[in-house]
Amino acid sequence: MSTQPSTELDTFPNPRPGRNYEIRFDCPEFTCVCPKTGQPDFATIRIRYTPDETCVELKSLKLYLWSYREVGAFHEAVTNKILDDLVAAISPKKMVVEGDFWVRGGITTVVEVQHP
Amino acid sequence: MSTQPSTELDTFPNPRPGRNYEIRFDCPEFTCVCPKTGQPDFATIRIRYTPDETCVELKSLKLYLWSYREVGAFHEAVTNKILDDLVAAISPKKMVVEGDFWVRGGITTVVEVQHP
Amino acid sequence: MSTQPSTELDTFPNPRPGRNYEIRFDCPEFTCVCPKTGQPDFATIRIRYTPDETCVELKSLKLYLWSYREVGAFHEAVTNKILDDLVAAISPKKMVVEGDFWVRGGITTVVEVQHP
Amino acid sequence: MSTQPSTELDTFPNPRPGRNYEIRFDCPEFTCVCPKTGQPDFATIRIRYTPDETCVELKSLKLYLWSYREVGAFHEAVTNKILDDLVAAISPKKMVVEGDFWVRGGITTVVEVQHP
Amino acid sequence: MSTQPSTELDTFPNPRPGRNYEIRFDCPEFTCVCPKTGQPDFATIRIRYTPDETCVELKSLKLYLWSYREVGAFHEAVTNKILDDLVAAISPKKMVVEGDFWVRGGITTVVEVQHP
Amino acid sequence: MSTQPSTELDTFPNPRPGRNYEIRFDCPEFTCVCPKTGQPDFATIRIRYTPDETCVELKSLKLYLWSYREVGAFHEAVTNKILDDLVAAISPKKMVVEGDFWVRGGITTVVEVQHP
Amino acid sequence: MSTQPSTELDTFPNPRPGRNYEIRFDCPEFTCVCPKTGQPDFATIRIRYTPDETCVELKSLKLYLWSYREVGAFHEAVTNKILDDLVAAISPKKMVVEGDFWVRGGITTVVEVQHP
Amino acid sequence: MSTQPSTELDTFPNPRPGRNYEIRFDCPEFTCVCPKTGQPDFATIRIRYTPDETCVELKSLKLYLWSYREVGAFHEAVTNKILDDLVAAISPKKMVVEGDFWVRGGITTVVEVQHP
Amino acid sequence: MSTQPSTELDTFPNPRPGRNYEIRFDCPEFTCVCPKTGQPDFATIRIRYTPDETCVELKSLKLYLWSYREVGAFHEAVTNKILDDLVAAISPKKMVVEGDFWVRGGITTVVEVQHP
Amino acid sequence: MSTQPSTELDTFPNPRPGRNYEIRFDCPEFTCVCPKTGQPDFATIRIRYTPDETCVELKSLKLYLWSYREVGAFHEAVTNKILDDLVAAISPKKMVVEGDFWVRGGITTVVEVQHP
Repeated sequence: MSTQPSTELDTFPNPRPGRNYEIRFDCPEFTCVCPKTGQPDFATIRIRYTPDETCVELKSLKLYLWSYREVGAFHEAVTNKILDDLVAAISPKKMVVEGDFWVRGGITTVVEVQHP
Repeated sequence: MSTQPSTELDTFPNPRPGRNYEIRFDCPEFTCVCPKTGQPDFATIRIRYTPDETCVELKSLKLYLWSYREVGAFHEAVTNKILDDLVAAISPKKMVVEGDFWVRGGITTVVEVQHP
Repeated sequence: MSTQPSTELDTFPNPRPGRNYEIRFDCPEFTCVCPKTGQPDFATIRIRYTPDETCVELKSLKLYLWSYREVGAFHEAVTNKILDDLVAAISPKKMVVEGDFWVRGGITTVVEVQHP
Repeated sequence: MSTQPSTELDTFPNPRPGRNYEIRFDCPEFTCVCPKTGQPDFATIRIRYTPDETCVELKSLKLYLWSYREVGAFHEAVTNKILDDLVAAISPKKMVVEGDFWVRGGITTVVEVQHP
Repeated sequence: MSTQPSTELDTFPNPRPGRNYEIRFDCPEFTCVCPKTGQPDFATIRIRYTPDETCVELKSLKLYLWSYREVGAFHEAVTNKILDDLVAAISPKKMVVEGDFWVRGGITTVVEVQHP
Repeated sequence: MSTQPSTELDTFPNPRPGRNYEIRFDCPEFTCVCPKTGQPDFATIRIRYTPDETCVELKSLKLYLWSYREVGAFHEAVTNKILDDLVAAISPKKMVVEGDFWVRGGITTVVEVQHP
Repeated sequence: MSTQPSTELDTFPNPRPGRNYEIRFDCPEFTCVCPKTGQPDFATIRIRYTPDETCVELKSLKLYLWSYREVGAFHEAVTNKILDDLVAAISPKKMVVEGDFWVRGGITTVVEVQHP
Repeated sequence: MSTQPSTELDTFPNPRPGRNYEIRFDCPEFTCVCPKTGQPDFATIRIRYTPDETCVELKSLKLYLWSYREVGAFHEAVTNKILDDLVAAISPKKMVVEGDFWVRGGITTVVEVQHP
Repeated sequence: MSTQPSTELDTFPNPRPGRNYEIRFDCPEFTCVCPKTGQPDFATIRIRYTPDETCVELKSLKLYLWSYREVGAFHEAVTNKILDDLVAAISPKKMVVEGDFWVRGGITTVVEVQHP
Repeated sequence: MSTQPSTELDTFPNPRPGRNYEIRFDCPEFTCVCPKTGQPDFATIRIRYTPDETCVELKSLKLYLWSYREVGAFHEAVTNKILDDLVAAISPKKMVVEGDFWVRGGITTVVEVQHP
């Protein structure tokens, strides 16, 4: 398996497709770049979802989040894009993505998006 | 872009207008002046909203909160005014503003207002 | 304005009477006297309310709570009385008063009363 | 008033019978004996209730909980019995009793029972 | 009683079958093996349930969780299996099992499954 | 034994006079009156000492601290006086008294005095 | 091995007698009886020591602490006695025993004794 | 007494000049202005000192800290100046001033200066 | 590089051998087996050392700690052995190993050993 | 002033060169790359120093730490290099740099280096 940043998200079959249950990830090692100033931004990305037929594979999620390291991304847009990509990859019954960005100008920003 | 206190709130188009989601700001560096005694007051302002067509720009929010530095303002009135100004600027689907004021006379005051 | 304990509660007009919103006070400096033993009791009084036409003034609330310093008062009764007095003074849309009393006989007691 | 362990629970008239409100006790000094091994067990007992016509008296509650000190009692059974005894004594509108037992075999157990 | 890892779960009759109440276990000493890498995984298993006619016995639960020590198990699958085994053993009215797994690749995973 | 505020401090013989050891009290229920404004002040009094031939009795310490309830006392002076009174009563090998006063004018004050 | 309260402390040979090192125990399940009122007292006992030729066995320490369950014991005396008994049993190079007793009369008491 | 910002520090005679003891203030409501950008800075100022013949008066300290509200001041310089002014006013036996400034550019700064 | 449990500890040259500095590891995923009962034990192992000419390699440390998974080991002995093995591998200028073991019989045990 | 990553560290004259005092920075937004795997590493860098004739400028410190974003760096080496670069830039009387790296392989690493 690769250890390069990757925009692909690997999946595996839900081991218990008949049951509604929740999977939560806490990813404190997220960094991207501010599109306006070019300076690095840092965030904790929190994901929780109810799988349908597939689940997202943990290592592939790590490589996917790594792929934002050189990408210019506004707080609101990047949190929505992570949700869109995850929904496209595994079509979950429901999913919430929360981007908890570190303080800028004395203000902390959290963006919380959900599907559907 | 200016770095002066400003009562204007800049906005940008919601990057994902078709989706209901929440943006939260935590602003611990708020200060205004007590209208009765002239002495400084301090608060943390917490804002959370669901954008409709526009979002509030972060740096402009900082300058807006700065504009209260010399303004006489009662706890209840100022928290309502911040909500009114933000609603006027971005017409959010819904918004909550919480002013968490530091202890006076041994008592801590929190004012939480919402729209609509 | 007086700085004596006082059973009167001053009020001021709600600055935004058309909006439902919440005001919360945290008052950790409350003391009264146990009616059975005559020994002092201590509590944190927490108040939250939705104002109708008037709000309670902060300094007058401090003097009001001070007025219990020499008063014999059971936990359950005094928390109800504080709520009754505040409701009589400002007729709030709704109000909750919580008396969080310090440990006696190894047991902590909290009394939480609400109107209506 | 006695200072002996006692299975009797004293009561007093609810000072505000027309109002629904909540009383909460936090009792971290509870100990009984494991019926299987004879070894001591320790727990925090948390009680919250809405009184009807009578309230439970605090000192008598302390003596009541003390009465379990030499009693063999399983976690599930003793928490239910405390609720039953309190309900029998004061017929509350509703009541919750939580027994939070210290770790045994690497596992912490909490039992939460309610009436009605 | 044995002190060997065991896949059997002992039960005892619910001491208060006519009442809906909740039992919660917090089990921070869980370890199994990653099926892909063969390396050990660690988790806290949290269980909460409303018993019907039987309850699960605490020591037997400890031995049951111990039985995973050499077992290869994915996070999502093992949390579902623990729920299935507990449901098969005691047919609870409802049950939630939460597997809170330690950080791998910078990401913490929690799986929360429920019955029914 | 009395249950009135009292300026007398009862003592008992040190059960282990040949050994240097420390006794610590944490007394969060202290209140006195500001000599300038007449308004109540609140503090936590922390005491730690190495006894010589006598120890201070716990209940008598409670009644002694209670005796300040109506007394006008500046932060610096009252903390020194508590130390002086305790030293006079039990002649400890060493003693530290810390008065941790609640916020006034946005500022918290701690006074820590020691003997010898 | 017995599972009865016991005043005997079992020991085992220090596995590394040539090295100075520290062993610490945190025992939150201690209870005894107040000699004056007959009411139960609760404490956390903390022990730390540098072993010489023998160490204290963990299960025997548990049974030893259990033996105080029906014993009348003042805070200062019982903490000194636990130290004396442990020193008599294992002659440590040095040892500290801390008894952290729960609040009585609004005051928490900690007694910390050491050898030599 | 004035309620205006003031660079003067009032003092009062040390009530116990023969004893070495410590007074500590925690002042979380400090704000000044960045000399480079003109934007507001926020800090908690912590002061601890051993008085010699005079102590600093609490209300005057509040007004003194308030006097920085419109002053341009670098973190390192302002913390040193507060120490210098306090030393000039009360000639303490020793004093420490700590300026704990809020995050700028993702970095928190603390400056701790002492006399002598 | 292997991903098997291993009693070998890999090292690398100290990148700054002329400077005294400290490296600290916090390893919460340690498990071994109680030699008396055969039941699993869990601990956090904390290591801090001043390197001389070599440092311990992080992944090899992980595999080394893993090697205790099936090993019977008393708390005091295993903590000393981990220190001995690390000292043998890298001859540090100084090193401390702390084994923080989970509660058994209601008692938490910490063993802290050092070299030299 | 630039807003690019930069290996240069700007300085300014110590505003109070005759006094020994301490400046502390807490920089939680540090990231570099593991030289072995190419994967990103994250750390909090903590710096504290006593300035001699010059101080390090805050914004330039931010840009300096940013310059490691694409650099391969082992934990031990990079923490030493940051100290070396800061010492070369400002020749402090003394300085400590602490690199607190996020968990890898279940183990957290902290490296703490000092000058002189």
